[in-house]
Amino acid sequence: MRLIEKYGHGGDLLTAHQVFNKASGEFLDFSANINPLGPPAKVLDLLKERLETIVHYPDPAHRVLKQKLSERNRVSDDQILIGNGAAECISLILLGLQPKTVGLIYPCFSEYEQLSVAFGAKINSCYGKLELDFKPDISELNLLLLESDLVFIGHPNNPTGVLYTMEELVQIAEQAKKTNTYLVIDEAFIDFLPKQLHITLLQKLERYRHVLIVRSMTKIYAIPGLRLGYVLAHPELIGKLQAKQVTWSVNQMALIAGEAVLNEREYEDETIALVKEQRNYVKQSIEEQLGWMVFPGQANFLLIRITDELAAAELQWKLGERGILIRSCAMYQGLTSQDFRIAIRTKKENDCLLQALKEVAHEGIQP
Amino acid sequence: MRLIEKYGHGGDLLTAHQVFNKASGEFLDFSANINPLGPPAKVLDLLKERLETIVHYPDPAHRVLKQKLSERNRVSDDQILIGNGAAECISLILLGLQPKTVGLIYPCFSEYEQLSVAFGAKINSCYGKLELDFKPDISELNLLLLESDLVFIGHPNNPTGVLYTMEELVQIAEQAKKTNTYLVIDEAFIDFLPKQLHITLLQKLERYRHVLIVRSMTKIYAIPGLRLGYVLAHPELIGKLQAKQVTWSVNQMALIAGEAVLNEREYEDETIALVKEQRNYVKQSIEEQLGWMVFPGQANFLLIRITDELAAAELQWKLGERGILIRSCAMYQGLTSQDFRIAIRTKKENDCLLQALKEVAHEGIQP
Repeated sequence: MRLIEKYGHGGDLLTAHQVFNKASGEFLDFSANINPLGPPAKVLDLLKERLETIVHYPDPAHRVLKQKLSERNRVSDDQILIGNGAAECISLILLGLQPKTVGLIYPCFSEYEQLSVAFGAKINSCYGKLELDFKPDISELNLLLLESDLVFIGHPNNPTGVLYTMEELVQIAEQAKKTNTYLVIDEAFIDFLPKQLHITLLQKLERYRHVLIVRSMTKIYAIPGLRLGYVLAHPELIGKLQAKQVTWSVNQMALIAGEAVLNEREYEDETIALVKEQRNYVKQSIEEQLGWMVFPGQANFLLIRITDELAAAELQWKLGERGILIRSCAMYQGLTSQDFRIAIRTKKENDCLLQALKEVAHEGIQP
Repeated sequence: MRLIEKYGHGGDLLTAHQVFNKASGEFLDFSANINPLGPPAKVLDLLKERLETIVHYPDPAHRVLKQKLSERNRVSDDQILIGNGAAECISLILLGLQPKTVGLIYPCFSEYEQLSVAFGAKINSCYGKLELDFKPDISELNLLLLESDLVFIGHPNNPTGVLYTMEELVQIAEQAKKTNTYLVIDEAFIDFLPKQLHITLLQKLERYRHVLIVRSMTKIYAIPGLRLGYVLAHPELIGKLQAKQVTWSVNQMALIAGEAVLNEREYEDETIALVKEQRNYVKQSIEEQLGWMVFPGQANFLLIRITDELAAAELQWKLGERGILIRSCAMYQGLTSQDFRIAIRTKKENDCLLQALKEVAHEGIQP
């Protein structure tokens, strides 16, 4: 049953409004993994100030933002493709590289499969193992690489929050090199992690010419309405992707915001500290007060398994009636009807959620 | 030689800035065919007011805008696909219908060919004939339909402004039906025409299930920076296109603007009147004062052939130095190095252009 994930994702406030009969703005949204601080104030001001520039076409080559991203990531301009959200980046990877077989490690972000199938690829898969904190068995992963033209790895993975060690990541990339498999590492949530956990092959793209890194700018800077993401890879791969991109795909407001957010270092640090502290707080509170199983994810969200007699869909319904949205994970391959995901938000908002969870769980065990 | 059409199109102010060493905002831009009235003031106000909603994902199903567009166009919801600009609409048509051969009538909008080739189609073509006001010979067009899985027709066509009669359009659609050819009618500029010239198969989509109409909302409402377009076609075709569309492809600001602009009926009327009057004025002025050949287009732009010893690229350069941008048409198949296109703007702006044209033409014939 899909209650508010009618279109396959969290964050759908219009559907929530229709289902729960509350104004979209009234919901406390834990179903989308967006920075709870909201967009940086300076960036909102700048967007207002430069709104009139929508009368012109956006730069078709994204020159200013590309320059800033190349400095930030210490790569050259031709190693970057800027897209209309990470979702467009993924679709351009599939269109540009045309894999016949795509390998997935379930559970994972549903767009990998949806877009792969839409563009004609066959899906291979293996499963993250509960006992390995949702990492796959290495022999199964090696088989997946062998069998697939392209493999997606979420890093940290959505919805589990799984993060590999650098050693593991290098091992996977080496294996992919041997099997001639493109490795797409989706780092959409990596910016929420402290610098020492930025485990990435970014500085090794020269050696790993079959590796593509996908980044999102809409989650960390809280601008999902504008759509902005990018791909980092060898220039030859970037060229193949670019050949499939529609002119002016990235809009003017996204470019303005993208150029501005990269100056917001304090905001980034504040976000990282908040997420770390509050994730621990929420995890501990749920474990101690509800006894539910909280998986050890590293991202700005948590995957939780209800150990009471309560389905995630029922929990979602009862919270929705209270104006709180969570993401049911029943539709994820490899997860169960007891699983749900919540974004990490501010202390005050998290306390609202925790209080509501306790109330609903308590109702649930009434005779 | 591509001076400011480095990326294949007009309206590239950043390249103009680099070439002519003037601030982007200083140019008078006749190279992009955008409503010179600028975005409706109410719409800009609303965008500012609702800017904070970029913290949420846009509606993945575009429900509110789709409803408004279905009312406006008197079609059902499932006959509409909303896209990230008309360019995305064209790419989704190619991805969804997968034509192996695409037919073009040169000269035409360059994205038809660029995207068709990018997605693996072979190009067939015929040419608009000067003596037929750039319409193709009917036997050549019939052959094109016979040989192609899909044919694009700009209506009015860019850069010629050609408009077919309803009789001709029906004849083409009937022929396409016989030859089992998808007919894509690009009406990106139709909203600039008086109602009596809205020659469209829109109300005949039930009969013509192989016809797709592409519309742009960014040109008439002067919001190209936001990206917004749509396709009108039989639900079965719309379904095929939708299957290839990336989730959240249309951004939140575009949706807000799209919903609001449809109320701006006075603005639309004012635009239509302005374009009609000023197009006649500019055409007549150029013919009388310069003796150049102005083709009889019906859109918010004019295609002009220089009959002096002056290449369009040279004219573009000399105007650019004066801060005025025009579109050289030398790169269009079927046109010559003497051809250029200008958008129709306000009287005052058009007078600036006319004055500059006279000066440059006068310089050109100096010994």
